[in-house]
Amino acid sequence: MKGAGVVTATDFLERFLAGDRLALARAISAVEDEADGYRDFLREIYGRAGKAYLVGITGPPGAGKSTLVSHLAERYAAAGRDVGVVAVDPTSPFTGGALLGDRIRMNELAGNERIFIRSMATRGGPGGLAKATGEVALTMDAFGLDLVLIETVGVGQSELDVANSADTTVVVVVPESGDAVQAMKAGLMEIADVLVVNKADREGAEQMARELRVTLELKPEDGWRPPVVMSVATEGRGVDEILEAVAVHRSHLEKSNGLTTRRRARVRRQLEELLEYEFKCVCAAAPAYENLLELLTAEVQQGLLTPYEASARLFKEVSREI
Amino acid sequence: MKGAGVVTATDFLERFLAGDRLALARAISAVEDEADGYRDFLREIYGRAGKAYLVGITGPPGAGKSTLVSHLAERYAAAGRDVGVVAVDPTSPFTGGALLGDRIRMNELAGNERIFIRSMATRGGPGGLAKATGEVALTMDAFGLDLVLIETVGVGQSELDVANSADTTVVVVVPESGDAVQAMKAGLMEIADVLVVNKADREGAEQMARELRVTLELKPEDGWRPPVVMSVATEGRGVDEILEAVAVHRSHLEKSNGLTTRRRARVRRQLEELLEYEFKCVCAAAPAYENLLELLTAEVQQGLLTPYEASARLFKEVSREI
Repeated sequence: MKGAGVVTATDFLERFLAGDRLALARAISAVEDEADGYRDFLREIYGRAGKAYLVGITGPPGAGKSTLVSHLAERYAAAGRDVGVVAVDPTSPFTGGALLGDRIRMNELAGNERIFIRSMATRGGPGGLAKATGEVALTMDAFGLDLVLIETVGVGQSELDVANSADTTVVVVVPESGDAVQAMKAGLMEIADVLVVNKADREGAEQMARELRVTLELKPEDGWRPPVVMSVATEGRGVDEILEAVAVHRSHLEKSNGLTTRRRARVRRQLEELLEYEFKCVCAAAPAYENLLELLTAEVQQGLLTPYEASARLFKEVSREI
Repeated sequence: MKGAGVVTATDFLERFLAGDRLALARAISAVEDEADGYRDFLREIYGRAGKAYLVGITGPPGAGKSTLVSHLAERYAAAGRDVGVVAVDPTSPFTGGALLGDRIRMNELAGNERIFIRSMATRGGPGGLAKATGEVALTMDAFGLDLVLIETVGVGQSELDVANSADTTVVVVVPESGDAVQAMKAGLMEIADVLVVNKADREGAEQMARELRVTLELKPEDGWRPPVVMSVATEGRGVDEILEAVAVHRSHLEKSNGLTTRRRARVRRQLEELLEYEFKCVCAAAPAYENLLELLTAEVQQGLLTPYEASARLFKEVSREI
């Protein structure tokens, strides 16, 4: 367990609340790794959170999300805001293994003292991706960052859940082979508050934007029709328009009470995740659990038990510990 | 709850075991929807399963997985095998919303009486994607299909887990902008038993195959080095080579006891999923749960409680019901 115990040091909380960036880095590691004392730490800082605005950036691999995120982060920073970036996209250059060009941009960003980047190195720790991402964002929020950008790849159940738990969700697509159709099928349209057609200098971009607008008109009217913004991320084109669209959506949410509703849904989901996590911890801590699981696995494989009988016995055993 | 009660009809099991395809279709719906009596049904058929071979086909959206799957299914069927196809890829034409060309191919397949296609229409039901997919594959297996092809999009945590629970996992990539790098970063290389470079008539295919081979040489030697196969799915090229590679891997697993090891890991994972599912059911059934969850959500949002205090109270309440 990396960083275990760090957050329990007596002056740690003090340093964190005083704005010590090293303390923030350590706190995030502790939270991500579920190191000793991390829950007490989160409990302590929880009251400070709630001021940051959370923006999710999602879309298929190769859509240019990371490049957009880095531009967005820079513009916000240039406007005097402190920005956190959480990359939960396994294909993001933020999470290592980047193409050379990407990595150079990332390094530039890393030199900006208003920008704090963190990639989710693991697949979310024992508590799962959504829980870990939420807690890292919370830590950045409580630290005092004004804005947290969460980059996730928009394919996959857990990843969509993460994207969907932001205050504003930006969906990025590119004008390529059936990409709009793919994105729509993958459930991206449903969660989009702002749609970005990136690589808009490519053929088919205008047509794609038109198609998306038509599709969005079919969306049930709930007071917000997601705007479609064109961008060329590599040249920084369209970045201001995206910022503007996010700002308009934010103000719409604030006026319509939508922000409260979204955040309530987020809290509810968080409670359910924590409950499940609590149960997993009880299982893992039950003395007989591991041996029984191995034994039952063997019996199921030998055809002596069905998995349903086996899991019922496992549940009974664990129940004793609760 | 769609199909509720169908599987509990007195002659249903009989018809299913007699090879009635309509009964298989109904059984799958009941399993997917967790309809009344589905667990008893699974318990009944469990002893019949274990004969089918499970092949996972995974890779990024647009890699041509569905086209390959349909060719593979046809070749197996032509060789006299009964084949099941489970599509858990939200971008797959099997799951509806397909491009026209895709849909035509699908319809052709649907006319083949040796091929049984099922897409996971929902996102996996309350029990989650992995649980539902595993149970649908089990149902096909117990019905007597020889082979089950599971198509999943290879991005996203749950989706990778699904792919990784097959006997042989085929990873499909295409020679496009950094696709190999993306795939590697997304954890696809780790789970690949067979690698396919599809759209091999495009520029860069040979180079990509070479790069993949070099990368695979770095893999720790565990007695199996994944072969890299070139294909052009739309023309059916390379399909026989993929079948051959799967057959060689299967025979390797059977000789090396690897199949038993993989299936044991699958059973173990299944038991853990069922345990978690059991817990969720207990929660949902607890009389005070929903009201308490709403109340605690509101208190957390008002800053009266931290989520950690709230979930502890929720857990205590649920514990009483266990």
